[in-house]
Amino acid sequence: MDPYPKPLRDLIGALKRLPGIGEKTATRLALFVLADRGNLPEELAATLKTVREQIRLCPVCFNLTDRTKCSICLNPSRDQTQICVVEEPSDVLALESANTYRGLYHVLHGLISPLAGIGPDDIRIAELMERIKRPGTVEVIVATNPSVEGEGTFHYIHKMIQDAGLTVSVSRIASGIPMGGELKYMDQVTLASALRYRRSLKDS
Amino acid sequence: MDPYPKPLRDLIGALKRLPGIGEKTATRLALFVLADRGNLPEELAATLKTVREQIRLCPVCFNLTDRTKCSICLNPSRDQTQICVVEEPSDVLALESANTYRGLYHVLHGLISPLAGIGPDDIRIAELMERIKRPGTVEVIVATNPSVEGEGTFHYIHKMIQDAGLTVSVSRIASGIPMGGELKYMDQVTLASALRYRRSLKDS
Repeated sequence: MDPYPKPLRDLIGALKRLPGIGEKTATRLALFVLADRGNLPEELAATLKTVREQIRLCPVCFNLTDRTKCSICLNPSRDQTQICVVEEPSDVLALESANTYRGLYHVLHGLISPLAGIGPDDIRIAELMERIKRPGTVEVIVATNPSVEGEGTFHYIHKMIQDAGLTVSVSRIASGIPMGGELKYMDQVTLASALRYRRSLKDS
Repeated sequence: MDPYPKPLRDLIGALKRLPGIGEKTATRLALFVLADRGNLPEELAATLKTVREQIRLCPVCFNLTDRTKCSICLNPSRDQTQICVVEEPSDVLALESANTYRGLYHVLHGLISPLAGIGPDDIRIAELMERIKRPGTVEVIVATNPSVEGEGTFHYIHKMIQDAGLTVSVSRIASGIPMGGELKYMDQVTLASALRYRRSLKDS
């Protein structure tokens, strides 16, 4: 017989639906929440409710926002001539944390993946093309992950822009050995890419 | 500037208050919850609310319950002559999963820890003594962890029962090498304990 009362069991069941949370972690988290003498369960419940009610997608770049447009699209000091194309909203956060890029974004919400049955129409490529066709964009930087799907999506977008006869330049984020990484631990594809896309000293 | 809208940032902040959840995991969980097409955020929020409202402590053994008493105290087929003393409600679950013990429990909700400023009056020892003084209990099994605090709490309870002149027998769960464990990986205290409390073959 289950020695845990049903409401606790229900909470453990809901926590187990989260990625990377198994039975043991869910139980530990549920008991922690229950034992909290502050407002943790109420705060969690309230923020879960608010996030669902207030977060929507920016109608321009499809990043997450709680306003009419996302904070980056609303910022007039961002470079309006560059669009950086990423897979997910978390990629925007990652790139912003580098504090280098000052242009706009476009979040695809997925990558083309024939194996998973995800085609170009299932992600925000049509909306990207609409943005590029409007005047103002000079460069499209495709910053999808260097995976099979990421490369495939890059090539698809590149071809779409070429076929449409658009004059914007298309670039791909650099792929190679990460800073602090060691050659002996790198896989063959990364090493091949790092050699192939070596920088000529005149570039630096 | 933070590219995440405030409601999402608030949810990440609340998730980070959970044990073992850092910034990256909290972000991953928050984005997962947000992207869920089912009822995950609502279910989490509802179960968090219900758990706080409905879970209370059993007035007899201080295990968790959503009824007047816990399911173990309410079960007449449990052996009413044995009380197993544990630190936390999760210890009840662990022992119940072994499917061996058929008696009652007493949850202390902590261990005596002079270093942390937790004395006997801060945990449910007075209530345990009240239960033992009432007729019916034959054996008290102290199943606190084999740590400094667990051993100290065991000795304190043992002395309290002796000083009160009660005739109940007091026992301590066995400490030694876990099943499947290897001697070469065990610490010295465990090895010393395993040797000291070796079983004479006549016991088996």
